[in-house]
Amino acid sequence: MNPVEVLKKSIITDEGKAALVHSGVNRRYLTQFPSSDGLFLLTAKAAYLLLDFRYAEAGANKAKNCKVVEVSSFGETLTEIVKQDGVREVYFEMDGISLALAKRFEGILEKAGAKAMLDKTLDTAISKQRMIKTSEEIAGIEAAQKITDAAFAHILPYIKEGVTEREVALEIEFFMKKNGADDLAFDSIVVAGENSSLPHGVPSDNKIKPGDFITMDTGAMLNGLHSDMTRTVALGKVSDEQKKVYETVLAAHMAVIDGVKPGMPGSEVDKIARDIIDKDYEGRFGHGLGHGVGYEIHEEPRFSKLDPTPCEPGMVITDEPGIYLPGKFGVRIEDMLLITETGCRSLIHSPKELILL
Amino acid sequence: MNPVEVLKKSIITDEGKAALVHSGVNRRYLTQFPSSDGLFLLTAKAAYLLLDFRYAEAGANKAKNCKVVEVSSFGETLTEIVKQDGVREVYFEMDGISLALAKRFEGILEKAGAKAMLDKTLDTAISKQRMIKTSEEIAGIEAAQKITDAAFAHILPYIKEGVTEREVALEIEFFMKKNGADDLAFDSIVVAGENSSLPHGVPSDNKIKPGDFITMDTGAMLNGLHSDMTRTVALGKVSDEQKKVYETVLAAHMAVIDGVKPGMPGSEVDKIARDIIDKDYEGRFGHGLGHGVGYEIHEEPRFSKLDPTPCEPGMVITDEPGIYLPGKFGVRIEDMLLITETGCRSLIHSPKELILL
Repeated sequence: MNPVEVLKKSIITDEGKAALVHSGVNRRYLTQFPSSDGLFLLTAKAAYLLLDFRYAEAGANKAKNCKVVEVSSFGETLTEIVKQDGVREVYFEMDGISLALAKRFEGILEKAGAKAMLDKTLDTAISKQRMIKTSEEIAGIEAAQKITDAAFAHILPYIKEGVTEREVALEIEFFMKKNGADDLAFDSIVVAGENSSLPHGVPSDNKIKPGDFITMDTGAMLNGLHSDMTRTVALGKVSDEQKKVYETVLAAHMAVIDGVKPGMPGSEVDKIARDIIDKDYEGRFGHGLGHGVGYEIHEEPRFSKLDPTPCEPGMVITDEPGIYLPGKFGVRIEDMLLITETGCRSLIHSPKELILL
Repeated sequence: MNPVEVLKKSIITDEGKAALVHSGVNRRYLTQFPSSDGLFLLTAKAAYLLLDFRYAEAGANKAKNCKVVEVSSFGETLTEIVKQDGVREVYFEMDGISLALAKRFEGILEKAGAKAMLDKTLDTAISKQRMIKTSEEIAGIEAAQKITDAAFAHILPYIKEGVTEREVALEIEFFMKKNGADDLAFDSIVVAGENSSLPHGVPSDNKIKPGDFITMDTGAMLNGLHSDMTRTVALGKVSDEQKKVYETVLAAHMAVIDGVKPGMPGSEVDKIARDIIDKDYEGRFGHGLGHGVGYEIHEEPRFSKLDPTPCEPGMVITDEPGIYLPGKFGVRIEDMLLITETGCRSLIHSPKELILL
């Protein structure tokens, strides 16, 4: 089943029901067609993608799983379809629409004889089905990751004493974009030395010096699909403490790859890594173990104390344990894991043994 | 008056009124502090910026015009302030909040004894005051434009036969980011040859060839403020028709600089340029003349048939006439104009006589 058929099955439980999807990310997920503006409407009769003159021609050629309708007024076309398809209740995407637009569409629907359903039904349904990736989506994430792996190989000889975090981040960005990325998947994190103890530090003009750990959390975006990888490397020699921290993080990371399997709750996966780190570094792993990746860089489900969602084949979730010693240094190692029938497969090919540059 | 004082004067018309600002752009405009998450609350008693642990320390040092409050729960702190300051009605920013969050905050406020005012009062008030730039904002736009001017000078020798639109766009982006831009102000438009007849074309792998017009619509973003400039240059010799189109666009552009003055409605400014173009190229200038620029790349007011807003000193609005001949070529020339007491001053220093590379 394509994503629209999956959605229809869960949401259109009787003939009068419909779903209105406004957010760019979910329109793209459902129809494969990116546009800065548009409206997706699913009724019991059909799936429609409403586009204005800027996108209608391209949409008619490229959008999947739906009928493209060129509109001069979204309100008028919405009214026509609602009346023609006998729609009586329309689920709204509550996270993906502004209050102003929601009020506008609510008024339009009311005049057309349909009620706006302002609850989380639609958001929850789409989020849930997006957790399970199709084989095309997995191939798309791997294509994005291929650029990220190449950028990692490219950046290693660039890292030298005196180069700044910001320069490394820009060089990664330029490489990815020159090598086909549509964009970065997110603002790169490049932190060195003491700054590497900040899990979400912003690249600064801090210069890399011998003995520094350099943590790079980067990803490319391609055709709407994201990739996400973190590697920590060192410039020159490292201390025994640095080595021990690195090996501990790597052990936690590998234990997750070895231990994760379908049916295991996300909270339990988080615990695999946390137990290893807590032995010697309790309280130094101050974030969850991982998050889903797909049409968004952060999506459901999580590997976290708070997420009981059981693993299912087709989920793509990051495995990113870290240890952060404030004022000293930090280490994080991150892969994206595809949950399989028997365990998992990493979508990442960059090495993770400690690299001393 | 600072922006918070201006807002207070227009919105807090009695003691029980308050305003809740959620959007990142308006939080930054009001407090000068950027953060991916946060909540600004203005009551009759004080202005509060609610930030979580990630931003509270930096916010306390850097945010202006407000009291920074570190929160563990936005809802709890909101409730406390509402009760303590005797708030009874809270204006919401309708364009800047999702339906989901609005519903959540509406429920929290109701329990705290205050009513959510779900109309456009706050959006309109902020949009209106943002139209008039402070001297700091003007200096900030000029600082962003300085990078854009430098990128234009940098790119001219890079443009050669066989270079693609996408390569030119990337080179501009890399230059801007290496030279201090926080980001692009918007996705660059670089279109050459036939593609230059598309006002909003996306850079493609189309190779530049002799005789092409190359239109570059680019801008840098710095400290939240945007810049926006378009120049059309040519590779090698151009035809008499190309020259005539270029000179017509330039004449329209310059007539606006000469003719605009305080009190003139945006629709009339649009007409200055349109009348010149319509003489020989009626229907070939298929967009409005300009838009406000500031904390957003497109903001109010417009130079457009549809916008009667009169020019006022302190407004920064683009002057970007164009002529587009489908299947042949296009030309657009764009400056940002600061409206002054007597007319206007362009914030852009790049040359606009036709450059033959």
